[in-house]
Amino acid sequence: MNSKIIKKRIRAIRRRLKKKQINCLILTKPANVTYTTGFLGDDSWAVISPKAVYLLTDSRYIEQAKNECPCCKVIQRSSAPAEAAAELIKKLKSVQTVAVEKSASLAAFDALKRQVKGRLKTAASIIEFVRSIKDNTEIAAIKAAARIAGQALSKIRQYIKPGITENELAGMLDFQVRKLGARNSFDTIVAFGSNASRPHHQPGSRKLKKNDCVLIDFGVRYKSYCCDLTRCFAVGRTGPLYKKVYNAVQEAQIAAIKTVKAGVEIKAVDAAGREVIKKNDLPVYGHGTGHGLGLEVHEEPVIAAESKGKLKAGMVFTIEPGVYIPGKLGVRIEDNILVTDEGYRILSPNHPHQPLPLT
Amino acid sequence: MNSKIIKKRIRAIRRRLKKKQINCLILTKPANVTYTTGFLGDDSWAVISPKAVYLLTDSRYIEQAKNECPCCKVIQRSSAPAEAAAELIKKLKSVQTVAVEKSASLAAFDALKRQVKGRLKTAASIIEFVRSIKDNTEIAAIKAAARIAGQALSKIRQYIKPGITENELAGMLDFQVRKLGARNSFDTIVAFGSNASRPHHQPGSRKLKKNDCVLIDFGVRYKSYCCDLTRCFAVGRTGPLYKKVYNAVQEAQIAAIKTVKAGVEIKAVDAAGREVIKKNDLPVYGHGTGHGLGLEVHEEPVIAAESKGKLKAGMVFTIEPGVYIPGKLGVRIEDNILVTDEGYRILSPNHPHQPLPLT
Repeated sequence: MNSKIIKKRIRAIRRRLKKKQINCLILTKPANVTYTTGFLGDDSWAVISPKAVYLLTDSRYIEQAKNECPCCKVIQRSSAPAEAAAELIKKLKSVQTVAVEKSASLAAFDALKRQVKGRLKTAASIIEFVRSIKDNTEIAAIKAAARIAGQALSKIRQYIKPGITENELAGMLDFQVRKLGARNSFDTIVAFGSNASRPHHQPGSRKLKKNDCVLIDFGVRYKSYCCDLTRCFAVGRTGPLYKKVYNAVQEAQIAAIKTVKAGVEIKAVDAAGREVIKKNDLPVYGHGTGHGLGLEVHEEPVIAAESKGKLKAGMVFTIEPGVYIPGKLGVRIEDNILVTDEGYRILSPNHPHQPLPLT
Repeated sequence: MNSKIIKKRIRAIRRRLKKKQINCLILTKPANVTYTTGFLGDDSWAVISPKAVYLLTDSRYIEQAKNECPCCKVIQRSSAPAEAAAELIKKLKSVQTVAVEKSASLAAFDALKRQVKGRLKTAASIIEFVRSIKDNTEIAAIKAAARIAGQALSKIRQYIKPGITENELAGMLDFQVRKLGARNSFDTIVAFGSNASRPHHQPGSRKLKKNDCVLIDFGVRYKSYCCDLTRCFAVGRTGPLYKKVYNAVQEAQIAAIKTVKAGVEIKAVDAAGREVIKKNDLPVYGHGTGHGLGLEVHEEPVIAAESKGKLKAGMVFTIEPGVYIPGKLGVRIEDNILVTDEGYRILSPNHPHQPLPLT
């Protein structure tokens, strides 16, 4: 990661720490450590003191950390992260109080507490808040991930034929992602027919029939950034229910996307999607309408009925309404949206999607 | 999951809870929820009260949970897990004190504490302790996962040829895993040449040379259980250093495996591996000698110098010594071992591995 970008991030984090009157912050969440230091390995914590940013890693990653983190002091730990962090903090004269991220485990907190004692408190959503506004490099990475996802999907379309199993199709898609130089951002969901009524179905040995429908929900991680797309296809003849549902979901998605603009209440985006499903007398989805995307495939902001706050320019999230009728079908359409001052940009390719049926 | 197995697990967990004087336990860690309830989805907590086991899940998983958890009361939550758990506990008259797993986040603990108040405490390693001893179904699943891993590896051996990139080889391996009806248990590591000196190298665009070496560290998840194997190959001519290192690592692995038997100190297994590397005047690996395998790819027991306790029959773990010389090479050999009263069984295939070179 470019030093200039990391330095800019650290400045933004320090402003946030100042506002929250936090003198020293211990980062335990991998994505927050990556964002703040540039480090891409695992099992490592970071400490932001008033004077420097430290990365605490072990011997497996020391070579990598020295390459990836030019703006940090890299410390090789031989004890557990909590002990190493406590040891470091004891040595830092500039540190008065210490906060640890609320995403840390109780076990990590206890281990820190034993050493750091009364000076230890917790802090929520410091880095997540800064991360929720993406810079141009991040937006470009998410867009590139989505472009790769589109390419991978177009390469496997020829195999969406009667007889193939969910598992095989998922494997082919993942292989294309890898061939395009990227990775999956989460376990690919491929669901045929009524399996799609389970929003998080795991691909199995179900074979595609002559007249059938397909739901593919998958993501690509490229340059550490995630996209997350869902596409539905009909194969052969489609019944009137499937057509009605597909059209309603597509209409709901477009309605939700059209509300997006900096300054809009987040819950209004959610409401716009649900409204259309309700108007069509279809069961309203139980999940949120979307979630933030970035270094993690689920991050801030959450787009749901209970979401507080307003959209800000630079936020990137999914919009993914769905309709699920157990035993019958499931349809979800998911794209990745960037908030701008003027409205939005759709980062994922081929929107709105091709009409039914596929074949 | 078979009801009989789940019931047996719940009995073992209750015995452990009784010993620790815990009246009600909230499970937040996905693998612990799966172990205790049979549920395979995400974002769900379980509550073990004196009278029943509850699964708290959301609308996306309700259909799946009802199929997978015949021994549990499935509750559909519409609020966050912590709120749903607190609401449930308030209604349960049999519950006096409540413990939450130490792996829970501080944020989850705070949310629970707001509702459950003074009755809330923490508990470490209740389910993990029970999970560390595998039953026959679990051992069979790990062995089947390792067999699939061996098959996948043998299918891609023909492609280990000059010109292929790390990324392509990793993609081919993952595709074979999927074709065999299984999944990766973690992100596959393929490292060529000196890249292998970073134990957790991420596959990239490095091409295999005519005279080169390959490290592949990957795992398969089958029926929810994980295996984890590392194999090294030489391609073309190999220098004397590589041969020396490979032989020393193999000797170290065999020495560590031979110590395995119920009742042996865990740290003695670790020491046996390191001893051989030291004796060969090679740099001793900075990571542990192994880690437990099961529903998670890293679980109890940890096989390291600082490990306390003794091996027990039914434990399953990796043994994976390595030698890393930055800028030159890396070799690690990893197999999966079951502890028995008489000694051990190697669950992974083709041990000890074929002599060098591959071609």
